[in-house]
Amino acid sequence: MQALKDRITAEGKNLGHGILKVDGFINHQVDPTLMNAAGAEFARIFAHLGATKILTAEISGIAPALMTGLHMGLPVVYARKSKPITMPDQVYLTIAPSHTKGRMVELIISPEYLAGGERVLIIDDFLASGSTIAGLVRLAQVAGARVAGIGTLIEKIFEGGRTLLSPLGIPIESLVSISSMDDGQIVFSD
Amino acid sequence: MQALKDRITAEGKNLGHGILKVDGFINHQVDPTLMNAAGAEFARIFAHLGATKILTAEISGIAPALMTGLHMGLPVVYARKSKPITMPDQVYLTIAPSHTKGRMVELIISPEYLAGGERVLIIDDFLASGSTIAGLVRLAQVAGARVAGIGTLIEKIFEGGRTLLSPLGIPIESLVSISSMDDGQIVFSD
Repeated sequence: MQALKDRITAEGKNLGHGILKVDGFINHQVDPTLMNAAGAEFARIFAHLGATKILTAEISGIAPALMTGLHMGLPVVYARKSKPITMPDQVYLTIAPSHTKGRMVELIISPEYLAGGERVLIIDDFLASGSTIAGLVRLAQVAGARVAGIGTLIEKIFEGGRTLLSPLGIPIESLVSISSMDDGQIVFSD
Repeated sequence: MQALKDRITAEGKNLGHGILKVDGFINHQVDPTLMNAAGAEFARIFAHLGATKILTAEISGIAPALMTGLHMGLPVVYARKSKPITMPDQVYLTIAPSHTKGRMVELIISPEYLAGGERVLIIDDFLASGSTIAGLVRLAQVAGARVAGIGTLIEKIFEGGRTLLSPLGIPIESLVSISSMDDGQIVFSD
Protein backbone atom coordinates (compact mmCIF):
# COMPACT_ATOMS: atom_id res chain seq x y z
CA MET A 1 0.00 0.00 0.00
CA GLN A 2 1.86 3.02 -1.31
CA ALA A 3 0.25 5.64 0.96
CA LEU A 4 1.31 3.71 4.07
CA LYS A 5 4.81 3.12 2.74
CA ASP A 6 5.15 6.83 1.94
CA ARG A 7 4.03 7.74 5.46
CA ILE A 8 6.53 5.35 7.06
CA THR A 9 9.28 6.80 4.87
CA ALA A 10 8.31 10.35 5.83
CA GLU A 11 7.53 9.92 9.54
CA GLY A 12 8.54 6.45 10.76
CA LYS A 13 11.54 6.28 13.07
CA ASN A 14 13.92 3.36 13.47
CA LEU A 15 14.64 3.34 17.21
CA GLY A 16 17.01 0.37 16.98
CA HIS A 17 16.52 -3.21 18.22
CA GLY A 18 13.87 -3.67 15.51
CA ILE A 19 11.56 -1.06 16.99
CA LEU A 20 9.74 1.01 14.39
CA LYS A 21 8.10 4.10 15.82
CA VAL A 22 4.92 5.01 13.97
CA ASP A 23 3.34 6.91 16.86
CA GLY A 24 2.41 9.85 14.65
CA PHE A 25 -0.14 7.97 12.52
CA ILE A 26 -0.84 4.52 14.04
CA ASN A 27 0.17 3.96 17.68
CA HIS A 28 -0.54 7.11 19.69
CA GLN A 29 -1.77 9.65 17.19
CA VAL A 30 -3.89 7.94 14.54
CA ASP A 31 -4.63 9.18 11.03
CA PRO A 32 -8.26 8.10 10.48
CA THR A 33 -8.11 8.74 6.73
CA LEU A 34 -5.06 6.50 6.33
CA MET A 35 -6.63 3.81 8.53
CA ASN A 36 -9.81 4.03 6.46
CA ALA A 37 -7.80 3.47 3.28
CA ALA A 38 -6.07 0.49 4.93
CA GLY A 39 -9.45 -0.91 5.98
CA ALA A 40 -10.74 -0.59 2.41
CA GLU A 41 -7.65 -2.42 1.16
CA PHE A 42 -8.07 -5.28 3.66
CA ALA A 43 -11.74 -5.52 2.71
CA ARG A 44 -10.75 -5.86 -0.95
CA ILE A 45 -7.99 -8.43 -0.27
CA PHE A 46 -10.14 -10.61 2.01
CA ALA A 47 -13.54 -10.15 0.32
CA HIS A 48 -13.63 -13.79 -0.83
CA LEU A 49 -13.11 -15.36 2.62
CA GLY A 50 -16.71 -15.21 3.80
CA ALA A 51 -15.57 -13.82 7.16
CA THR A 52 -18.25 -13.30 9.82
CA LYS A 53 -16.17 -11.36 12.35
CA ILE A 54 -13.00 -9.29 12.67
CA LEU A 55 -10.70 -10.14 15.58
CA THR A 56 -7.88 -7.98 16.92
CA ALA A 57 -6.04 -7.21 20.15
CA GLU A 58 -6.14 -3.98 22.12
CA ILE A 59 -4.82 -1.39 21.69
CA SER A 60 -3.13 -0.63 18.40
CA GLY A 61 -5.04 -3.21 16.39
CA ILE A 62 -8.34 -1.48 17.02
CA ALA A 63 -8.03 1.31 14.43
CA PRO A 64 -7.23 -0.84 11.37
CA ALA A 65 -9.64 -3.58 12.52
CA LEU A 66 -12.47 -1.09 13.00
CA MET A 67 -12.02 0.39 9.54
CA THR A 68 -11.86 -3.09 7.98
CA GLY A 69 -15.07 -3.99 9.81
CA LEU A 70 -16.68 -0.81 8.51
CA HIS A 71 -15.86 -1.68 4.89
CA MET A 72 -16.87 -5.34 5.27
CA GLY A 73 -19.98 -4.69 7.37
CA LEU A 74 -18.71 -6.98 10.14
CA PRO A 75 -18.48 -6.63 13.93
CA VAL A 76 -15.03 -6.24 15.47
CA VAL A 77 -13.98 -8.04 18.66
CA TYR A 78 -10.82 -6.87 20.41
CA ALA A 79 -9.14 -9.19 22.88
CA ARG A 80 -8.70 -7.43 26.22
CA LYS A 81 -5.42 -7.48 28.12
CA SER A 82 -7.20 -7.28 31.48
CA LYS A 83 -10.63 -8.56 32.39
CA PRO A 84 -13.19 -5.76 32.86
CA ILE A 85 -15.95 -6.10 35.45
CA THR A 86 -18.55 -6.37 32.70
CA MET A 87 -17.06 -9.66 31.47
CA PRO A 88 -18.40 -13.00 32.75
CA ASP A 89 -16.19 -15.14 35.02
CA GLN A 90 -15.70 -17.82 32.41
CA VAL A 91 -13.59 -16.47 29.54
CA TYR A 92 -11.18 -17.56 26.84
CA LEU A 93 -7.68 -16.56 27.96
CA THR A 94 -4.25 -17.13 26.52
CA ILE A 95 -0.82 -15.70 27.27
CA ALA A 96 1.54 -14.26 24.68
CA PRO A 97 4.97 -12.65 24.99
CA SER A 98 4.97 -8.94 24.08
CA HIS A 99 8.07 -7.81 22.26
CA THR A 100 7.46 -4.11 22.88
CA LYS A 101 6.43 -4.54 26.53
CA GLY A 102 9.20 -7.03 27.34
CA ARG A 103 6.84 -9.30 29.30
CA MET A 104 3.97 -11.76 28.93
CA VAL A 105 0.51 -10.29 28.34
CA GLU A 106 -2.89 -11.91 28.68
CA LEU A 107 -5.35 -11.93 25.78
CA ILE A 108 -8.94 -12.39 26.93
CA ILE A 109 -12.16 -12.83 24.95
CA SER A 110 -15.65 -13.32 26.31
CA PRO A 111 -17.43 -16.43 24.94
CA GLU A 112 -20.40 -14.10 24.39
CA TYR A 113 -18.73 -12.62 21.31
CA LEU A 114 -16.81 -15.48 19.73
CA ALA A 115 -18.82 -18.57 18.92
CA GLY A 116 -18.26 -21.90 17.25
CA GLY A 117 -18.79 -21.81 13.49
CA GLU A 118 -17.62 -18.22 13.04
CA ARG A 119 -15.12 -17.41 10.30
CA VAL A 120 -12.67 -14.95 11.77
CA LEU A 121 -10.45 -12.43 10.01
CA ILE A 122 -7.57 -11.31 12.27
CA ILE A 123 -6.38 -7.73 11.71
CA ASP A 124 -3.49 -6.12 13.62
CA ASP A 125 -1.05 -3.26 13.23
CA PHE A 126 2.22 -5.24 13.17
CA LEU A 127 3.33 -8.71 12.18
CA ALA A 128 6.65 -9.02 14.03
CA SER A 129 7.40 -12.22 15.97
CA GLY A 130 3.80 -13.32 15.37
CA SER A 131 3.24 -14.18 19.02
CA THR A 132 0.23 -11.91 19.56
CA ILE A 133 -1.44 -13.13 16.38
CA ALA A 134 -0.68 -16.76 17.30
CA GLY A 135 -2.43 -16.04 20.62
CA LEU A 136 -5.48 -14.69 18.80
CA VAL A 137 -5.52 -17.82 16.61
CA ARG A 138 -5.46 -20.02 19.75
CA LEU A 139 -8.38 -18.06 21.25
CA ALA A 140 -10.40 -18.45 18.06
CA GLN A 141 -9.66 -22.17 17.90
CA VAL A 142 -10.62 -22.73 21.55
CA ALA A 143 -13.92 -20.96 20.80
CA GLY A 144 -14.52 -23.36 17.91
CA ALA A 145 -14.16 -20.61 15.32
CA ARG A 146 -12.10 -20.88 12.16
CA VAL A 147 -9.46 -18.29 11.28
CA ALA A 148 -9.94 -17.51 7.59
CA GLY A 149 -7.26 -14.85 7.16
CA ILE A 150 -4.65 -12.67 8.82
CA GLY A 151 -3.96 -9.07 7.77
CA THR A 152 -1.45 -6.61 9.20
CA LEU A 153 -0.50 -3.07 8.31
CA ILE A 154 3.26 -3.58 8.62
CA GLU A 155 5.26 -6.79 8.51
CA LYS A 156 8.80 -6.89 9.86
CA ILE A 157 9.94 -9.87 7.84
CA PHE A 158 13.20 -10.23 9.76
CA GLU A 159 11.37 -11.05 13.02
CA GLY A 160 10.02 -14.32 11.67
CA GLY A 161 6.28 -14.04 12.35
CA ARG A 162 5.32 -15.41 8.94
CA THR A 163 7.52 -18.46 9.53
CA LEU A 164 5.78 -19.07 12.86
CA LEU A 165 2.28 -18.70 11.43
CA SER A 166 2.66 -20.30 7.98
CA PRO A 167 2.19 -23.91 9.20
CA LEU A 168 -1.39 -22.93 10.14
CA GLY A 169 -2.22 -22.72 6.42
CA ILE A 170 -4.04 -19.39 6.83
CA PRO A 171 -3.64 -16.63 4.18
CA ILE A 172 -1.41 -13.84 5.58
CA GLU A 173 -1.35 -10.41 3.92
CA SER A 174 0.58 -7.31 4.98
CA LEU A 175 0.07 -3.90 3.41
CA VAL A 176 3.76 -2.98 3.78
CA SER A 177 6.73 -5.31 4.32
CA ILE A 178 10.05 -4.29 5.83
CA SER A 179 13.00 -6.57 5.18
CA SER A 180 15.68 -4.85 7.26
CA MET A 181 16.09 -2.20 9.94
CA ASP A 182 19.85 -2.62 10.30
CA ASP A 183 22.12 0.43 10.54
CA GLY A 184 19.23 2.78 11.30
CA GLN A 185 17.59 2.18 7.93
CA ILE A 186 14.05 1.13 7.00
CA VAL A 187 14.30 -1.13 3.93
CA PHE A 188 11.05 -2.13 2.22
CA SER A 189 10.95 -5.54 0.60
CA ASP A 190 8.80 -4.58 -2.39
CA MET B 1 -29.24 9.51 18.62
CA GLN B 2 -32.06 7.07 18.12
CA ALA B 3 -30.00 4.18 16.68
CA LEU B 4 -27.75 4.14 19.75
CA LYS B 5 -30.70 4.40 22.13
CA ASP B 6 -32.41 1.51 20.34
CA ARG B 7 -29.28 -0.61 20.61
CA ILE B 8 -28.92 0.09 24.33
CA THR B 9 -32.57 -0.83 24.82
CA ALA B 10 -32.13 -4.06 22.87
CA GLU B 11 -28.72 -5.21 24.11
CA GLY B 12 -27.52 -3.05 27.01
CA LYS B 13 -27.45 -4.71 30.44
CA ASN B 14 -27.83 -2.98 33.78
CA LEU B 15 -25.36 -4.86 36.00
CA GLY B 16 -26.20 -2.81 39.09
CA HIS B 17 -24.08 -0.18 40.90
CA GLY B 18 -24.50 2.10 37.87
CA ILE B 19 -22.63 -0.25 35.55
CA LEU B 20 -24.09 -0.37 32.03
CA LYS B 21 -22.78 -3.28 30.00
CA VAL B 22 -22.55 -2.41 26.30
CA ASP B 23 -19.85 -4.97 25.49
CA GLY B 24 -21.76 -6.23 22.46
CA PHE B 25 -21.43 -3.03 20.40
CA ILE B 26 -19.01 -0.61 22.12
CA ASN B 27 -16.65 -2.04 24.77
CA HIS B 28 -15.44 -5.47 23.66
CA GLN B 29 -17.27 -6.21 20.44
CA VAL B 30 -17.64 -3.01 18.42
CA ASP B 31 -20.22 -2.27 15.74
CA PRO B 32 -18.25 -0.20 13.19
CA THR B 33 -21.40 0.94 11.36
CA LEU B 34 -22.95 2.29 14.57
CA MET B 35 -19.66 3.95 15.56
CA ASN B 36 -19.44 5.50 12.09
CA ALA B 37 -22.94 6.95 12.50
CA ALA B 38 -21.96 8.31 15.92
CA GLY B 39 -18.82 9.84 14.42
CA ALA B 40 -20.89 11.53 11.71
CA GLU B 41 -23.21 12.91 14.38
CA PHE B 42 -20.33 14.30 16.48
CA ALA B 43 -18.85 15.85 13.33
CA ARG B 44 -22.18 17.58 12.64
CA ILE B 45 -22.65 18.78 16.24
CA PHE B 46 -19.09 20.11 16.59
CA ALA B 47 -18.50 21.34 13.01
CA HIS B 48 -18.44 24.99 14.10
CA LEU B 49 -15.71 24.63 16.74
CA GLY B 50 -12.72 24.83 14.41
CA ALA B 51 -11.14 21.83 16.15
CA THR B 52 -7.66 20.82 15.02
CA LYS B 53 -7.39 17.49 16.84
CA ILE B 54 -9.52 14.80 18.48
CA LEU B 55 -8.40 13.62 21.93
CA THR B 56 -9.57 10.46 23.70
CA ALA B 57 -8.34 7.88 26.20
CA GLU B 58 -7.56 4.26 25.50
CA ILE B 59 -9.30 1.89 25.16
CA SER B 60 -13.02 2.34 24.65
CA GLY B 61 -12.84 5.94 23.47
CA ILE B 62 -10.81 4.99 20.40
CA ALA B 63 -13.67 3.71 18.22
CA PRO B 64 -15.98 6.77 18.48
CA ALA B 65 -13.00 9.17 18.38
CA LEU B 66 -11.58 7.52 15.27
CA MET B 67 -14.88 7.74 13.41
CA THR B 68 -15.31 11.38 14.46
CA GLY B 69 -11.81 12.10 13.19
CA LEU B 70 -12.64 10.38 9.91
CA HIS B 71 -15.69 12.58 9.36
CA MET B 72 -13.91 15.77 10.42
CA GLY B 73 -10.63 15.03 8.64
CA LEU B 74 -8.68 15.39 11.90
CA PRO B 75 -5.97 13.30 13.59
CA VAL B 76 -6.91 11.40 16.75
CA VAL B 77 -4.63 11.21 19.79
CA TYR B 78 -5.42 8.65 22.46
CA ALA B 79 -3.93 9.08 25.91
CA ARG B 80 -2.04 5.93 26.92
CA LYS B 81 -2.50 4.29 30.31
CA SER B 82 1.09 3.03 30.33
CA LYS B 83 4.12 4.54 28.67
CA PRO B 84 5.30 2.55 25.62
CA ILE B 85 9.01 2.32 24.79
CA THR B 86 8.48 4.47 21.70
CA MET B 87 7.45 7.47 23.83
CA PRO B 88 10.04 10.06 24.89
CA ASP B 89 11.04 10.30 28.58
CA GLN B 90 9.39 13.67 29.02
CA VAL B 91 5.60 13.32 28.77
CA TYR B 92 2.37 14.91 29.95
CA LEU B 93 0.94 12.67 32.67
CA THR B 94 -2.05 12.98 34.93
CA ILE B 95 -3.84 10.58 37.25
CA ALA B 96 -7.57 9.96 37.28
CA PRO B 97 -9.75 7.59 39.32
CA SER B 98 -11.35 4.86 37.21
CA HIS B 99 -14.87 3.97 38.29
CA THR B 100 -14.94 0.66 36.39
CA LYS B 101 -11.43 -0.40 37.41
CA GLY B 102 -11.79 0.68 41.05
CA ARG B 103 -8.33 2.29 41.13
CA MET B 104 -6.34 5.25 39.88
CA VAL B 105 -5.12 5.13 36.28
CA GLU B 106 -2.46 7.19 34.54
CA LEU B 107 -3.25 9.15 31.39
CA ILE B 108 -0.14 9.90 29.34
CA ILE B 109 0.34 11.98 26.18
CA SER B 110 3.55 12.64 24.31
CA PRO B 111 4.31 16.34 23.76
CA GLU B 112 5.06 15.36 20.15
CA TYR B 113 1.34 15.08 19.41
CA LEU B 114 -0.31 17.77 21.51
CA ALA B 115 1.01 21.27 21.03
CA GLY B 116 0.20 24.75 22.24
CA GLY B 117 -2.39 26.52 20.13
CA GLU B 118 -4.32 23.40 19.18
CA ARG B 119 -8.11 23.35 19.52
CA VAL B 120 -9.01 19.96 20.94
CA LEU B 121 -12.29 18.07 20.72
CA ILE B 122 -12.52 15.38 23.42
CA ILE B 123 -14.53 12.28 22.45
CA ASP B 124 -15.14 9.32 24.79
CA ASP B 125 -17.57 6.45 25.17
CA PHE B 126 -19.06 7.37 28.58
CA LEU B 127 -19.62 10.52 30.59
CA ALA B 128 -20.07 9.11 34.11
CA SER B 129 -18.23 10.78 37.01
CA GLY B 130 -16.32 12.87 34.48
CA SER B 131 -12.95 12.07 36.05
CA THR B 132 -11.32 10.62 32.92
CA ILE B 133 -12.50 13.54 30.80
CA ALA B 134 -11.35 16.02 33.46
CA GLY B 135 -7.95 14.31 33.24
CA LEU B 136 -7.88 14.76 29.46
CA VAL B 137 -8.78 18.44 29.90
CA ARG B 138 -5.85 18.84 32.33
CA LEU B 139 -3.45 17.21 29.86
CA ALA B 140 -4.63 19.51 27.06
CA GLN B 141 -4.27 22.57 29.28
CA VAL B 142 -0.77 21.60 30.41
CA ALA B 143 0.17 21.25 26.74
CA GLY B 144 -1.12 24.77 26.10
CA ALA B 145 -4.01 23.52 23.97
CA ARG B 146 -7.59 24.71 24.28
CA VAL B 147 -10.46 22.25 24.73
CA ALA B 148 -13.21 23.39 22.38
CA GLY B 149 -15.77 20.67 23.03
CA ILE B 150 -16.56 17.40 24.77
CA GLY B 151 -18.66 14.65 23.19
CA THR B 152 -19.63 11.27 24.63
CA LEU B 153 -21.75 8.42 23.34
CA ILE B 154 -23.59 7.78 26.61
CA GLU B 155 -24.07 10.08 29.58
CA LYS B 156 -25.08 8.67 32.95
CA ILE B 157 -26.58 11.87 34.30
CA PHE B 158 -26.92 10.49 37.84
CA GLU B 159 -23.13 10.15 38.24
CA GLY B 160 -22.57 13.90 38.10
CA GLY B 161 -19.92 14.26 35.39
CA ARG B 162 -21.64 17.23 33.77
CA THR B 163 -21.75 19.03 37.12
CA LEU B 164 -18.01 18.44 37.54
CA LEU B 165 -17.13 19.65 34.03
CA SER B 166 -19.62 22.51 33.54
CA PRO B 167 -17.51 25.14 35.37
CA LEU B 168 -14.92 24.76 32.57
CA GLY B 169 -17.36 26.47 30.20
CA ILE B 170 -16.80 23.90 27.45
CA PRO B 171 -19.75 22.67 25.34
CA ILE B 172 -20.68 19.10 26.37
CA GLU B 173 -22.82 16.91 24.12
CA SER B 174 -23.92 13.31 24.67
CA LEU B 175 -25.66 11.24 22.00
CA VAL B 176 -27.76 9.37 24.58
CA SER B 177 -28.52 10.39 28.19
CA ILE B 178 -29.56 8.00 30.94
CA SER B 179 -31.24 9.53 33.98
CA SER B 180 -31.62 6.45 36.17
CA MET B 181 -30.47 2.86 36.46
CA ASP B 182 -32.28 2.15 39.71
CA ASP B 183 -34.19 -1.12 40.17
CA GLY B 184 -32.47 -2.77 37.21
CA GLN B 185 -33.96 -0.32 34.72
CA ILE B 186 -32.34 1.86 32.06
CA VAL B 187 -34.29 5.13 31.93
CA PHE B 188 -33.47 7.57 29.12
CA SER B 189 -33.82 11.25 29.88
CA ASP B 190 -35.08 12.32 26.47
